[in-house]
Amino acid sequence: MTRRDFINSTSASYASLLAWGLLQSAPADAIDLPANGKRTDGKGRKVVILGAGLAGMATAYQLGKLGYDCTILEARSRSGGRVWTVRGGTKETEMGGTPQACSFENGLYFNGGAARIPHHHQLTLQYCRELGVPLEIFNGNNEAAYLFNDGGTGPMANRRVRIKEYHNDMRGYTAELLAKSLDQHALDQELTKEDVEKLIDFLKNEGDLNTAHLYKGTNRRGYKTKGEPGAGPAPGDMTDPFDLTDLLRSGFMQPVFYNVGDYIYEQQTTLMQPVGGMDAIPRALEKQLSGKIMFNAPVTELRKTDNGVRVVYQKDGKPQEVTGEFCVCTLPLPMLKNLESDLSGTVKRAADFVPYIKTGKIGLQFKRRFWEEDDWIYGGISRTNMDINQIWYPSFGFQGKKGVLIGYYNFYGRAEAVGAMPVAEREKMALEQGGKIHPQYPAEFDNSFSLAWHRVPYSGGGWATYDDATRRKYYQALTEPDGNIYFAGEHTTYLTAWMAGALTSAHRAVEAIHSRVGAYTRK
Amino acid sequence: MTRRDFINSTSASYASLLAWGLLQSAPADAIDLPANGKRTDGKGRKVVILGAGLAGMATAYQLGKLGYDCTILEARSRSGGRVWTVRGGTKETEMGGTPQACSFENGLYFNGGAARIPHHHQLTLQYCRELGVPLEIFNGNNEAAYLFNDGGTGPMANRRVRIKEYHNDMRGYTAELLAKSLDQHALDQELTKEDVEKLIDFLKNEGDLNTAHLYKGTNRRGYKTKGEPGAGPAPGDMTDPFDLTDLLRSGFMQPVFYNVGDYIYEQQTTLMQPVGGMDAIPRALEKQLSGKIMFNAPVTELRKTDNGVRVVYQKDGKPQEVTGEFCVCTLPLPMLKNLESDLSGTVKRAADFVPYIKTGKIGLQFKRRFWEEDDWIYGGISRTNMDINQIWYPSFGFQGKKGVLIGYYNFYGRAEAVGAMPVAEREKMALEQGGKIHPQYPAEFDNSFSLAWHRVPYSGGGWATYDDATRRKYYQALTEPDGNIYFAGEHTTYLTAWMAGALTSAHRAVEAIHSRVGAYTRK
Repeated sequence: MTRRDFINSTSASYASLLAWGLLQSAPADAIDLPANGKRTDGKGRKVVILGAGLAGMATAYQLGKLGYDCTILEARSRSGGRVWTVRGGTKETEMGGTPQACSFENGLYFNGGAARIPHHHQLTLQYCRELGVPLEIFNGNNEAAYLFNDGGTGPMANRRVRIKEYHNDMRGYTAELLAKSLDQHALDQELTKEDVEKLIDFLKNEGDLNTAHLYKGTNRRGYKTKGEPGAGPAPGDMTDPFDLTDLLRSGFMQPVFYNVGDYIYEQQTTLMQPVGGMDAIPRALEKQLSGKIMFNAPVTELRKTDNGVRVVYQKDGKPQEVTGEFCVCTLPLPMLKNLESDLSGTVKRAADFVPYIKTGKIGLQFKRRFWEEDDWIYGGISRTNMDINQIWYPSFGFQGKKGVLIGYYNFYGRAEAVGAMPVAEREKMALEQGGKIHPQYPAEFDNSFSLAWHRVPYSGGGWATYDDATRRKYYQALTEPDGNIYFAGEHTTYLTAWMAGALTSAHRAVEAIHSRVGAYTRK
Repeated sequence: MTRRDFINSTSASYASLLAWGLLQSAPADAIDLPANGKRTDGKGRKVVILGAGLAGMATAYQLGKLGYDCTILEARSRSGGRVWTVRGGTKETEMGGTPQACSFENGLYFNGGAARIPHHHQLTLQYCRELGVPLEIFNGNNEAAYLFNDGGTGPMANRRVRIKEYHNDMRGYTAELLAKSLDQHALDQELTKEDVEKLIDFLKNEGDLNTAHLYKGTNRRGYKTKGEPGAGPAPGDMTDPFDLTDLLRSGFMQPVFYNVGDYIYEQQTTLMQPVGGMDAIPRALEKQLSGKIMFNAPVTELRKTDNGVRVVYQKDGKPQEVTGEFCVCTLPLPMLKNLESDLSGTVKRAADFVPYIKTGKIGLQFKRRFWEEDDWIYGGISRTNMDINQIWYPSFGFQGKKGVLIGYYNFYGRAEAVGAMPVAEREKMALEQGGKIHPQYPAEFDNSFSLAWHRVPYSGGGWATYDDATRRKYYQALTEPDGNIYFAGEHTTYLTAWMAGALTSAHRAVEAIHSRVGAYTRK
């Protein structure tokens, strides 16, 4: 049975198969959507697409292959939406903010929005393959990075601790405690004697226990000497472990400190990023859509007509109009809110009530890559309960002269507070707080560029953050057409925040439109 | 106090400071060895260096900076020794073997010897920086790769299991068992009630336990559907965990299956590799040594003279001779064994008795990167108890058309058995065994290139593998001069097998020679 036979034989739609991932391990031509109509059914049919982010461009790209005549209206002067790389020359003015221009050195950048591709986001990876976007590894889980519990008490507070120190100690002690329980026959009713022996084998390795099943430290957490241990006349000395009680009282069990690559499926190794910046993906898509994107064209009105849709947008300060048989609206919900429209009450309420995350980042350029040279951190993330929340070290340009790290990546209240500051104050805060973890900050700092997504025009937020109630009330309406208007974007999926959500929802919209057209034309 | 003051103030030698890593976080000029002599003390002094591997070339590079006149004798027609990248055009004939020529496609390769740089091997990294060798991440720890216990019994045998399935299940069950012990007050004398609560918090996250502190599976081990979960009308379904008893009886507790990045300091994230192949490092060093390396010049005799050393080598089938004040011998011990020499009895016995590992690799070129496309494995290592032992997936060239993976990487008896086969049989074995893990092998295979280091001329083994007795008996002799003959190479350090050993030992030799010369000249 071939893949195509399987698709034809099942009652599940292509879209649902695709959404459910059954096709996503297929070769690149899987994204060359055949859908339920014929290849030519789209000819001459006009589709107006709102937004030249990943969802909008993927929709136009796939509909274009099927013969549709697509026009994308994009409010900004660039494509990509929240897939945005900040580099020297980047300009932005936040709502209510002052203009910022980025002055990073040539070759340095940070990804302001989407920043990593999980190895299981196969549709995203297939787009990269089809469009020729080269990828490299994004080092998400680097246990050489730090934890810093600011303002706590006890010996673990207000100091930087390598994730590997905390983690290997905790694994060691928990392995020791479980081995003790097993040795004391506390769990005899759970396991046979032989299985207990095998479990102890596992624990000895997992926790690096000694022959008495005790954890007395491990070289996994590093050596006392800074460099290579054992190049000299004797092997190196192991560091001393922290005390279990101190670890338990460290505060590192709080979610803000989680080593998420162990805990979150989407952030497990392997993560990837396009070489040169995440905007390589929208730029590659844009190249496929020559003449189809109208930039600087913010949409103000979306109307249903007898034959389809009518869209009003601003161009050079004047209202203009475009009509089409279908519309695919990929505007983030905070933008949909401001649109005059004939949209259904449920969709309008979705725009009002589905929450979007407040989130911000700052890129800090330093004269020297001290995190590599002094701290041996090559990529990865340090975590703290301070407002900066996370520091991201670049996974590219290793050992270069200068470098840009992400000096904060924060969410919710922290992002709101920081985003409300003028950019100079954000920078000051990032340097002060980050300087507690990296004392090299003041001597090495060059310049910065910050952003608060909830204040970025035409985005108005990071991504949709449904709770159970809003998911139940509004989600379905966004996955279905409202007349001839279809919705796409990360907010119309369970893959919120991910490029995979944008792309998969685009495929769902294309499939739905083409299937409907196919049904007409075959009537 | 500056770094230099510190060096001068201490009784420890620069070499020992360096060896102990105290200087290794300094900027790149730390490898511009000042040593104890003056910068000019080396002028006009002749040093004969045996071997143009990393140790020999680094020695010549650093001595050259101090004014010494170095000649390197290299048996091969290339530099780099066991730092060797195999690509299209590579040729080798093993001792007792038939000639092999590699026919990989342009841009595809595998590192036959040294293959990863730990983030804490700062001297190696500093060489890369000083010599302008660009680095990228080597993905050593990819839990999406497989374990395969061949020939076992029970439900986990003779099938591939993702490391993340095994590991997250084990973490879940061990967390559950420890939580149970804690809940049953079996460990009350170890911890306070509050600390128990915090430990349970840790266990809940570490093992993904439910509110009843039970492990019932986790999405960390993947989803039932292959692709992105949750792009459709509902979030994805988690896979079912394996049974604890089955896991304990799986055989995966055997060292051959260890997820070494968790267990071995040297293999923790972040690991790096030069872009384009590990031989970028020797090639960059060679460029600094123009005219100083004599290739195709195997050494046959090493003699002490009244004024220094005399070395006999073969050139165009005829014996030639070179003299010098000093010799730095970096030959691997299996090669030293065959040398006519005046070396001390201890050094000769070291050459006889320090064991070298037998180890082999095969590069397999495939028409399609099915491990990425079908299995979502981007770099990392699968592990099995079969003779192939490990399969390495490339950390570069993602999503390209063809790819080369390392089809076996084996050691000791397995490497001996496989290395004894003709190359065609090695290939057949690699395809048969690897095909159990990747059924795509037969359909996608292109060609191969294999090597057995213990059979590679002028190497004769993988690396020195001291045990306590040989370390005690022979190590010191190799770290000290034998008359005017100094030794360097990974086998003269505790960092055996690593480029860091070669480089650090080279610095030790340079320091020792220059310090001795400085003592003369200041007399």
